[in-house]
Amino acid sequence: MTVYLVGAGPGNPELITVRGLELLRSCDAVVYDTLASEELVDETPADALRISREGLRQHEIDRLLVELGRSGLEVVRLKGGDPFLFGRGAEEALALEAAGVACEIVPGVSALAAAPASAGVPITHRGLSDRVTIVSGHSAHGDELDYEALARAGGTLVVFMGRTALARIASGLIGAGMRPSTPVLLASRATCPDERHVVTTLAACGERAASLASPTLVVVGEVVSLAHGARAQARSARAA
Amino acid sequence: MTVYLVGAGPGNPELITVRGLELLRSCDAVVYDTLASEELVDETPADALRISREGLRQHEIDRLLVELGRSGLEVVRLKGGDPFLFGRGAEEALALEAAGVACEIVPGVSALAAAPASAGVPITHRGLSDRVTIVSGHSAHGDELDYEALARAGGTLVVFMGRTALARIASGLIGAGMRPSTPVLLASRATCPDERHVVTTLAACGERAASLASPTLVVVGEVVSLAHGARAQARSARAA
Repeated sequence: MTVYLVGAGPGNPELITVRGLELLRSCDAVVYDTLASEELVDETPADALRISREGLRQHEIDRLLVELGRSGLEVVRLKGGDPFLFGRGAEEALALEAAGVACEIVPGVSALAAAPASAGVPITHRGLSDRVTIVSGHSAHGDELDYEALARAGGTLVVFMGRTALARIASGLIGAGMRPSTPVLLASRATCPDERHVVTTLAACGERAASLASPTLVVVGEVVSLAHGARAQARSARAA
Repeated sequence: MTVYLVGAGPGNPELITVRGLELLRSCDAVVYDTLASEELVDETPADALRISREGLRQHEIDRLLVELGRSGLEVVRLKGGDPFLFGRGAEEALALEAAGVACEIVPGVSALAAAPASAGVPITHRGLSDRVTIVSGHSAHGDELDYEALARAGGTLVVFMGRTALARIASGLIGAGMRPSTPVLLASRATCPDERHVVTTLAACGERAASLASPTLVVVGEVVSLAHGARAQARSARAA
């Protein structure tokens, strides 16, 4: 009778929450993002309905969730990352509430800090960055990003869904006064077995991003300088 | 032989990751924040060392972790929220790596989106906010916050550790041109049984924050307007 909007976490299925996994294991139906791992979908009971959201538009997902909830099922809506941080979870929650279907949010680990952490990069660090700005690369397609404000903000800039628009975003930031040598981390499929990390610069990042698989999180700022050294030291420690 | 920096999540012990709980259940020692729940500390084996970090300075914590790791123990450093988002996790990771002790980051659910979500508030929402700025209230004590840039940034502003400095921050933002009627959510001890949410305005938030328990996350922006209606609808749905 409840639709649970559950964050699947950044990719590695062990990074779902304990509560999220419990709900998956006892649900009647799951509606899942392609970003959520197959291993998690396989945790649902053998007789559970398993519905991929691929190809469905947002209003169709909303309607599907309302119908499943109204039919009396316990439904998990499994979303990549966290449902309320670029997850469009609130649109689904509002649709459910308007239809009188009970809804509960179960937060998840966002790629925001988890993807950079997998490369040794903290998005805040004493002396390097005490603030974070988060934007969506989709906003760049309509030229809606305020590059002047972003270049002035200081701290760490994190771009979600920024891979395909990255060359444009980087040149917008450089045009607004950000140094072309500003360090950039590209974290592709972070926490998954096929994760890749590229440490580059603002000037070069657009080209480097082209060959990376989705999702790729983009981190811009001095904290990226912690990536390589920290990782090299960790490797020699593990080898010792 | 490894020190795991594990995010405990925002408060509710069921919001730790599956991986984090597994590590707690098999560790030899845990060093925990007061923000991490007692229930989680109790998940460690009966013969595990349990050490509160209360009263220890950061360099003392670093040294303790190095010593425990060097003595061959499997150590969990249990931190509130996420270790790499205002968690000072990277300082501990760098100290461990410099000492040749293996270290692994296990991300956690940050209060960033989880605390507002517990009041029905998404920090991003189509048409209301497509960007988020995160700052620490501690930066306000040294007058280091750039209120002009924050007032201009648009989208949602989230302040960690902002409760005690909130009156000063709010007047800084208003002085820089932000509307006094801008909606503000104060989320105190979110996801815990004693959580409290206050929906107020920028002009009034400093006074309202005084009576709230720590930790309190502060959310400033139009997304806060989704809080009350969404919650009221959810309540009538549950009552029906």
